[in-house]
Amino acid sequence: MGLPKSVIIYEVGPREGFQIEDGPISTSDKVNLINGLTETGLTSIEVTSFVSPKWVPQMADAEEVLSQIKRKEGVSYRTVYLNIKGLHRAYQNNVTLDGVLMLTASNTFSKRNTNKDIKETLSTIPSWIQAYKEYKIPVEQIAVMAAFGCNFEGDIEQQKILDILRQTIQMAEENGETIQKFKLADTMGWANPQQIKNMIYTIRNEWPQIKILLHLHDTRGLGMANAYAAMEEGVNEFETALGGLGGCPFAAVKGAAGNIATEDFVFMCMELGIGTGINLDLLIENVSAAEMIVGHSLPGHLLRGGLLRR
Amino acid sequence: MGLPKSVIIYEVGPREGFQIEDGPISTSDKVNLINGLTETGLTSIEVTSFVSPKWVPQMADAEEVLSQIKRKEGVSYRTVYLNIKGLHRAYQNNVTLDGVLMLTASNTFSKRNTNKDIKETLSTIPSWIQAYKEYKIPVEQIAVMAAFGCNFEGDIEQQKILDILRQTIQMAEENGETIQKFKLADTMGWANPQQIKNMIYTIRNEWPQIKILLHLHDTRGLGMANAYAAMEEGVNEFETALGGLGGCPFAAVKGAAGNIATEDFVFMCMELGIGTGINLDLLIENVSAAEMIVGHSLPGHLLRGGLLRR
Repeated sequence: MGLPKSVIIYEVGPREGFQIEDGPISTSDKVNLINGLTETGLTSIEVTSFVSPKWVPQMADAEEVLSQIKRKEGVSYRTVYLNIKGLHRAYQNNVTLDGVLMLTASNTFSKRNTNKDIKETLSTIPSWIQAYKEYKIPVEQIAVMAAFGCNFEGDIEQQKILDILRQTIQMAEENGETIQKFKLADTMGWANPQQIKNMIYTIRNEWPQIKILLHLHDTRGLGMANAYAAMEEGVNEFETALGGLGGCPFAAVKGAAGNIATEDFVFMCMELGIGTGINLDLLIENVSAAEMIVGHSLPGHLLRGGLLRR
Repeated sequence: MGLPKSVIIYEVGPREGFQIEDGPISTSDKVNLINGLTETGLTSIEVTSFVSPKWVPQMADAEEVLSQIKRKEGVSYRTVYLNIKGLHRAYQNNVTLDGVLMLTASNTFSKRNTNKDIKETLSTIPSWIQAYKEYKIPVEQIAVMAAFGCNFEGDIEQQKILDILRQTIQMAEENGETIQKFKLADTMGWANPQQIKNMIYTIRNEWPQIKILLHLHDTRGLGMANAYAAMEEGVNEFETALGGLGGCPFAAVKGAAGNIATEDFVFMCMELGIGTGINLDLLIENVSAAEMIVGHSLPGHLLRGGLLRR
């Protein structure tokens, strides 16, 4: 299909990043960073998670963060939630809700993350649809984690993803909902560029009208090559994290890279003539601020490599 | 053209890496690492530079390194030299000599590196050809540094590269030599994937029979995407550095990434079904050894991200 003219970038750094850090991060540090990101031209920022503070103490201040940030028109503030209780909290805190149905392509990982295997998760889909209906949120998206491979289960067959998508679409349709987007997450950094392309071909072949959003990790250094390969096929929606904030809790060794870095991805797009609407200088100032907050350097390249000065 | 079936990897880590490190690195550390790399399946290792110890004190032990390493059949040991005196030293130390004519696409950078601008460098080409002839080394390669952009001069017009290549080829031909390979180095990390592809198209259009070898830097995070883009066009020769050893002396801030990491590149090739002949587990053991030698972590991803265990 050729490179897209522009891309939509969903910034997930504050949520992915602050979740994994050892040290406590103050609410005001979080708020300041989110406020800084709001000024860069980003149109979507995932700011926190509505999850149990017992399991993820770093996200216990979700409500405070959302009440303290300075919201800007044209910027969507998003959050993660893993159960309907979390959705309820999100709804009460004025965030953008996508009506997303969440699944994981690996039984083991699904079980570890949510205490439900794939079959059990599929059985909860009708109740999710019902919950969204109650809030009058159209159910438009299916998100699949570990869609390209899993440290616990190894390769994930493409057929498995298609089965999950088909079953979930059917449940949505039976409830009068129309899926418009698939989010595929390479949660543990298993994807390679050809696999990305194959997945895109296969999905487009079956569902030509459904958009694809990719969440790519750089655990093994292929993140940017994967993003480029996807853009060569016209994919134009990506989740990325400022500085590569976040790391990977599943990697072999502590210190492995996490999501592809927003600034590196924005830079690649700029160089390829693909619009992002983002001010890269401002973005890099925020990477610098993020490094101060977490107290260590981040894997993104631009802060140290520097912009191209022509 | 589609992905190649296999690639040739020229390891440049020991030379690029030890050149830039602050601390002194002992000859025996260098020798041990090179001996380790020799066992990984690599077929070419750039081990040192024959340059003035006044300017590059870390390379003062070039002769000792070459006399102490355990050489293995089937492995080529290569070195860098910047003048004919250096070529003479290399010749006396039993290394693989490629009959390479070296140029830089940026006047400013050329002057800083060799005290000669492009025109002056071109005027030395006949004496290089003569020197190679004396050693009975066929002149087969033209190498162009900063071929994709320069921190001092900005963008480098493709036309400029073509002019340099044409003039150098002509001088080679006038002396009865046939150029068989271009090495293009993205010395300061300016390239993007489309620029790489355009350069490959243009060169293939004019010189379909000449092979292309790429030396890619990851200064701004696009190194692996650039390598993938080149392989999509069938390029199958790359210089890479173990662990990403080397850094970039021209980057905005100390700590910027250097060459693409050999292990990340080998991993990408494996995942794409492209043969490398390299044992990735052994290679990663050497990355670990290299980190011990330089005393800090290196930018390559695989050591921390871990292999895919299926």
